[in-house]
Amino acid sequence: MAGQRRMVVVGGDAAGMSAASRARRLRDREHLAITAFERGRLASYSACGIPYWTGGVVDGPDALVARTPEAHRERGIDLRMLTEVTELDVAGQRVRARELTSGRETWHGYDDLVLATGARPLRPPLEGIDARGVYGVQTLEDGRALLEGLERTAARRAVVIGAGYIGVEMAEALVRRGCAVTVVERSAQPMATLDPDMGALVREAMSGMGIEVVTDTAVTGVRTGADGEAVGVATSAGDVPADVVVLGLGVRPETSLAAAAGLPLGESGGLLTDLAMRVRGHANIWAGGDCVEVLDLVSGRTRHIALGTHANKHGQVIGMNVGGGYATFPGVVGTAVSKVCDLEIARTGLREKDARAVGLRFVTATIESTSRAGYYPGAREMTVKMLAEQGTGRLLGVQIVGREGAAKRVDVAAVALTARMTVEQMTALDLGYAPPFSPVWDPVLVAARKTATLIR
Amino acid sequence: MAGQRRMVVVGGDAAGMSAASRARRLRDREHLAITAFERGRLASYSACGIPYWTGGVVDGPDALVARTPEAHRERGIDLRMLTEVTELDVAGQRVRARELTSGRETWHGYDDLVLATGARPLRPPLEGIDARGVYGVQTLEDGRALLEGLERTAARRAVVIGAGYIGVEMAEALVRRGCAVTVVERSAQPMATLDPDMGALVREAMSGMGIEVVTDTAVTGVRTGADGEAVGVATSAGDVPADVVVLGLGVRPETSLAAAAGLPLGESGGLLTDLAMRVRGHANIWAGGDCVEVLDLVSGRTRHIALGTHANKHGQVIGMNVGGGYATFPGVVGTAVSKVCDLEIARTGLREKDARAVGLRFVTATIESTSRAGYYPGAREMTVKMLAEQGTGRLLGVQIVGREGAAKRVDVAAVALTARMTVEQMTALDLGYAPPFSPVWDPVLVAARKTATLIR
Repeated sequence: MAGQRRMVVVGGDAAGMSAASRARRLRDREHLAITAFERGRLASYSACGIPYWTGGVVDGPDALVARTPEAHRERGIDLRMLTEVTELDVAGQRVRARELTSGRETWHGYDDLVLATGARPLRPPLEGIDARGVYGVQTLEDGRALLEGLERTAARRAVVIGAGYIGVEMAEALVRRGCAVTVVERSAQPMATLDPDMGALVREAMSGMGIEVVTDTAVTGVRTGADGEAVGVATSAGDVPADVVVLGLGVRPETSLAAAAGLPLGESGGLLTDLAMRVRGHANIWAGGDCVEVLDLVSGRTRHIALGTHANKHGQVIGMNVGGGYATFPGVVGTAVSKVCDLEIARTGLREKDARAVGLRFVTATIESTSRAGYYPGAREMTVKMLAEQGTGRLLGVQIVGREGAAKRVDVAAVALTARMTVEQMTALDLGYAPPFSPVWDPVLVAARKTATLIR
Repeated sequence: MAGQRRMVVVGGDAAGMSAASRARRLRDREHLAITAFERGRLASYSACGIPYWTGGVVDGPDALVARTPEAHRERGIDLRMLTEVTELDVAGQRVRARELTSGRETWHGYDDLVLATGARPLRPPLEGIDARGVYGVQTLEDGRALLEGLERTAARRAVVIGAGYIGVEMAEALVRRGCAVTVVERSAQPMATLDPDMGALVREAMSGMGIEVVTDTAVTGVRTGADGEAVGVATSAGDVPADVVVLGLGVRPETSLAAAAGLPLGESGGLLTDLAMRVRGHANIWAGGDCVEVLDLVSGRTRHIALGTHANKHGQVIGMNVGGGYATFPGVVGTAVSKVCDLEIARTGLREKDARAVGLRFVTATIESTSRAGYYPGAREMTVKMLAEQGTGRLLGVQIVGREGAAKRVDVAAVALTARMTVEQMTALDLGYAPPFSPVWDPVLVAARKTATLIR
């Protein structure tokens, strides 16, 4: 069709389908053909919801699907499920797609290509890692397999490998399923995205919930029984028996397709883009979501951060740009929130080691406060740690560990980091106050005040 | 004592005692004598807690006292209770204080004077307004009197005059006490600090809670019975019977002392200060808390806002400056949060009429979203309205009405206003996301995205 451009999307989850949907709203079928390839059985789902599905907190998997393939097709996106893109021909502006059921391969030309290939879970090459009873939690299929495994074996003991976000969220889920849970972590504390002193608070709280947290310990293999099914893990501190083993080690960018095509990758293996989410040096190739590195606005370096909220933003930006508009994704400050049972965990900006890595001199202050006025029912304690640059007082990072009402307070710091505020400026922030919502000095303000006193 | 300066504080609540305490931490008794006068029986208490004490949600009044007079004295502050300052002699650098029990008056010289005289509740000159059974809720004594009145009369019906913050919070309190509550408001909607369309949501929710909200209606008098006790209010829409009548009309700066001394006052009658909280034109007179006007950073005008959180900040700044340090209070953006039962109400920045008053052209967008991922238990709806400047896209204001998890989201907008961000910049904010805490697009981001599409 004359004047019709072709948009091809590789990967049918948050970034890819957001890009496709946004472009479709800007350009009708006459002017833009959109084809999307997804190698799995599901598109546009919330992988972040898997721990809550496993824990029985939310229904699944349908509730976790934001939009079905049929709904995408009704909106004029030719979404091909169970179809994997196996080759990218940059010079020829085309991709080769393989239908997984038939094995049939076809080439598809593009005017604009969107790479949204996501991430793959870390799966260390350990003996027994592929045994029955070892589960990833990356896709809804993984979630379903784990739930089936839990039921089939009437699991009583679970081991989670890795105490990062996925690990601690899965620990909660397995506790809810009635398992005795051991989390094995190589670092000195759980939640290595926090400084160790704040991670220690998480460890203490998890222990209080009856979750065994084994740190400074490497998993060396998965033990299997006579039937080949996992019966525990072998670690540098001895064996830990388990009916199910869950891999919670985080993810790496899935960029093998891009790498083979010679596209630029960063240190973590993620695609490098400009602010418009265009792959560097390629005018008509875009990338977003878990397969890219993003600019960290605090450190000035690019990082890999797999988070659905970023993927959605990337998709919006790409869709705007492909659809004929203009948008940019300026970068991140590294905000993340999570919880284990009633313990809330949040962080944004740089940890101590991040600040050291970029050569910043900094001060830190840690304070304790409450979510509401101390006299108001339901006031819960929280610990706030703040980092600021020595000399200038510029905010560098905030970490919060507490109970109900703790985590989302990190948003104030996220905005302050974006605006490059100093901690002195933060002490005057006009945050909402009423006894049911905050002490008269919000915990973030208390932390800013204490940090400000340390700036010279 | 040679080298000893004299700090005199008028008003023993948040601003005054924060200033005194902060100055004391910086300067010992040898170098700074601190005398504070308070005409009431209590110092350093949370008036904001009165509605919750009345409602039986929190204990009172002791729990609402942050620090007793004795504790202040132990820290080296000569706090004189039941002592009213009746005259300020600026030229002579002295104040006249009157002991209310003995009637004895004495003059006290100062090197630094802190005016923290607070606010007085609006009390319209209506027939019957001083009758027994009509209650203010400004001081802990007021709170105690109301509770005694409720018990003595076994009150079943209550009228609250005024549907602002105090009015709606008292409506909740009286509902909790088992009263049938009618709120009478002169404006078209409750919560005139919101735009009428958002106030309408509050009205609807209050009606759903069984609170009768009568708007566009002026109270013309208090009806009294044969014993002189209030039996209802007369309004432009007829009589409303009541066992107790509560005045929830807000407050005005209490600056009669300052006015008599010729100190500069703003349009609302509040003292005008510089950024160091020094009364304009007076090098050694400081003022803070409910008796001052503050700079509104969004409109560029000064306003009167009576809020404990501002008073505490003012006190800190004054105490730093009097104590030999240096600090400033840059201004406010007009953030306020409140609740009626489980309805949360928040606002920051300018309303439509505020924007018009300062001649700004603006756009508005209103969106509905939820506090958590839609599929996560406890996800509650909220409505977010956003105002931005036409042409530039600068954020001007945000209003939120919703259920649990709604109000404190306004803090993100408060920081963005302080940083003078555009709504386009806000769409990229790295706010915390996880299903128990937020949809993948936080409601504030959804509002920013919609508003950004309207900027030309």
